[in-house]
Order: sequence, then C-alpha cells, then structure tokens
Amino acid sequence: MTVADSTQPAIVLVSPQMGENIGAAARAMMNCGLKDLRLVNPRDGWPNERATANAVGALEKMPPVQVFGSTKDAIADCQRVYATTARPRDMVKSVYTAKSAADDIHARAAQNEKSAVLFGGERSGLDNDDVALAHGIVTVPLNPDFTSLNLAQGVLLLAYEWFQAQDETAAIQTHAPEDILASGEELNGMLGRLEEELEARHFFRTEGHKPTMKRNIRAMLMRAEFTDQEVRTMHGMISALIGKKDSE
Amino acid sequence: MTVADSTQPAIVLVSPQMGENIGAAARAMMNCGLKDLRLVNPRDGWPNERATANAVGALEKMPPVQVFGSTKDAIADCQRVYATTARPRDMVKSVYTAKSAADDIHARAAQNEKSAVLFGGERSGLDNDDVALAHGIVTVPLNPDFTSLNLAQGVLLLAYEWFQAQDETAAIQTHAPEDILASGEELNGMLGRLEEELEARHFFRTEGHKPTMKRNIRAMLMRAEFTDQEVRTMHGMISALIGKKDSE
Repeated sequence: MTVADSTQPAIVLVSPQMGENIGAAARAMMNCGLKDLRLVNPRDGWPNERATANAVGALEKMPPVQVFGSTKDAIADCQRVYATTARPRDMVKSVYTAKSAADDIHARAAQNEKSAVLFGGERSGLDNDDVALAHGIVTVPLNPDFTSLNLAQGVLLLAYEWFQAQDETAAIQTHAPEDILASGEELNGMLGRLEEELEARHFFRTEGHKPTMKRNIRAMLMRAEFTDQEVRTMHGMISALIGKKDSE
Repeated sequence: MTVADSTQPAIVLVSPQMGENIGAAARAMMNCGLKDLRLVNPRDGWPNERATANAVGALEKMPPVQVFGSTKDAIADCQRVYATTARPRDMVKSVYTAKSAADDIHARAAQNEKSAVLFGGERSGLDNDDVALAHGIVTVPLNPDFTSLNLAQGVLLLAYEWFQAQDETAAIQTHAPEDILASGEELNGMLGRLEEELEARHFFRTEGHKPTMKRNIRAMLMRAEFTDQEVRTMHGMISALIGKKDSE
C-alpha cells in the first residue's frame, strides 16, 4: 500500500506464531471488509503457506500484507493506536469495548485520522512496551470465567463491530424483498371462506362462542403475514381438507 | 442436562465435520457464557479428541454435550428456533441479524421460552429441511464480497451478541477503578507551578499572547485527566527540566 487508507483501521498482529491464525485473522478481516493487515516479526516468516490455506482466498483480495521489524514502525503512519488486551494493565489509559473502539475509529476516520489496532501473539498477548504505544486499550467484554479468546476470534469481534457501525441492514426483515404480501381482499377472501367451510361443518358449536372463535382464528392466521402465494396455498389446503378438488 | 435452561439458547451444530471446529465453537460459546451445546450426527462421532484440544477447557466447563440423530430431536424442548444461513432461502421467514436475533432470544427467555440456534456443517450449511424447522432465519450482515464465515466464527458472533445484550460494561472506562483522579487543588497546583516556571524562563514572549497560551496549555494537559500519582510525576519532570532536585 503506498498511501494508507484512513477510512479503515490497520490490523497489526505483533509477533504472531501460527500461520493458521494469521490466515484466519485475514479471513475474519475480509468478512468485515478490512484489508490493511500488518505483521510485526511473524515467528515463521512471511509469506506463510498455512496462512494462505486458512485465509481461504482473503489474502488475495487484500493489498499485500506489510511486515515490520517493530511495532513502532508498523504504526508510523497512524494517528490513533488501540491495544487489545484481555487483562487490565498497570497503565492509565482509556479502556474501550470492541464496540466503542469501533465507533471511535469511525469518528476519527471522518477527520482523516488513520487508526491501528494491535493484537498480541498467541502465547502471551502484547507486552507492556507495545501497550504503552497505544492511546487506548480495547478489552472485549466476555464471560469473566473464560476470557481466553483465540487471536482470529479477537480480530473478528473488532472487525465485526467496525462493520456493524456502518452497516444499514434492517434488524428484522419480515419478508424477502421479492415476496409480495397478500392484499386485504385476498386475505379476507380466504379467511371468510375458511369460516364458511368451518361453519358448514359445525365447527363453531355454540353461537355464543362463535364471534370470539372467529376473532381468534383471524388473529392467529393474520399474525403469519401471508404472501399472495401463501393465501393460494391456504385455499388449496382448505379445498383438500373438505375433499374438494380445485384449480390449485 | 436434565431440564433445559431456558435463560440461554441451545447452540445446535447440524452435521458438523471437523472436531477442531466443534471445539472452537465450544470455546466461543464459553467466552460468552453459553453452555448448551448440541450436535446432530457429528461426522466423526462423539466425544472427539480434536474437539477437546481446540476447546482449551471449554467443554469441561459446560454440561455434557448432547448428541442427536435428527435436528427435530435436538430441538424438541425448544419453543423458538433460528436457522443461520449465509444466503437467502426460498422460504418466507423473518430474517434477523445476529443482534436482533440475540435480542429476540432474550425477550423470549424472559417469558420462559427456550430458544435454539441451528448452524449447518462446514461444507454446505443447513439443508432446506432444517431451515424449514425454524421460526426465523439469522444472517449476519457481512462484507457482501466475502461472506464465507468459519463455523466457530459464526457461533462466536451469535454468542457475542447474546452476551452483549445483557452486558453492562461501560463503553469507555477512562481509568481503571483503582486509580484516583487528581483533585482540582493538586492539578491546579501543578499547572500553576508549570506556568510560573515557564514565565520565569520567558516562555510567554508577549504579554498579549500569554492568556491564550496559558489556556491552551491547561486545556491540553487537563484533557489527559491525570491521577494524583501522575501529577506528582509531572512535578518531578518539571523539576528535572529546570535542573532542580526535588523529593520525587
């Protein structure tokens, strides 16, 4: 990369050990649209076959991974640095969650500030000298009884929060866009027919209970929010149940 | 587990292939406090040594994993079922994000409804018959150019959102709780001394600029929110810079 893309953070793996984990981290980054991967002193050198295999294509989709001899060099072009740690350090720094760090990264990117997020090696995480380089600490809130997070899982959670912060997917999509909800006419036609057929077969035992029973049936079936195709399917089922062949 | 704990969802891995991935999924679950892991027809049987190794202790911390011969059996005690899929299916079901599914699971748990979340095998995900068993679909919003998510990563994101939804960690903790912020008196004592020493050394070249320069220095240093120890360190640095030995 000639000029760092300040719209997204660099993910800096400091002294990573297993190529598998570097590859899995690259895959997690690409899942979330992050492409600026930097390595500081990877134990087994670079490139690494096991990383390539575990990245399942992610490394080919990003600019070449940059390798540095020190953490300082790796973050030289970054205005803002976050250190990920599972345990508190004896340093006075702001401690962010993955989500608040992601929000902060976006806010700073909007001001053209490039961020870097440091992740330590598998064995012991970042050392204190690396943490001292950071403006803030990121500790993902997790089950306090079991905080040991795999390297790639840690990268995934940070990258996921970064992606979430700018993603506009609706929380709940009730129907796939190509589906068309049934109109009130179609729906009421089907419900009216159902009531008639039920009535003809003495389903509503007493006149007194009939209005409530009808209301309950309508509520129950309307809750399903049928498409027009599903209304046709309901008609077909009603026909089948009453022993009538229809065009369905 | 004799009686299902409805406060948390069952994670159901349907036809998982590699023990490593089952273990990594168990680890991700424990990271987020989830302990109800169920397997449907695991390819290599159960228990599985590679799963145990990759779980790094998580499997010992949860009740025994339950193994079933069919997805239907695995969810028999669950009132609410979610199917995770990366691609849309030709079925009319609500599509949730990981976050909205997690919120829904909590809301239903509050009504004593037990949820299950289905995850398909590594090769091809859930088949349509499994998806048909679900009340809703979960599709994690990801980079549309690279949605291929490893099994354990998928479990992690769902579990993480479930944990987040009930976690109360402050978004940003400015100081570790054991640190004590400097009092106004300590802070102003140090800032006043700094100003005096600067003034004595003709730092403020013109009287006209002095008020603004003082304000800027105060703003800059107050932003750091020093602890009392740090104020002492500042005093020590000032002393050192002016060539004076003090008790620090």
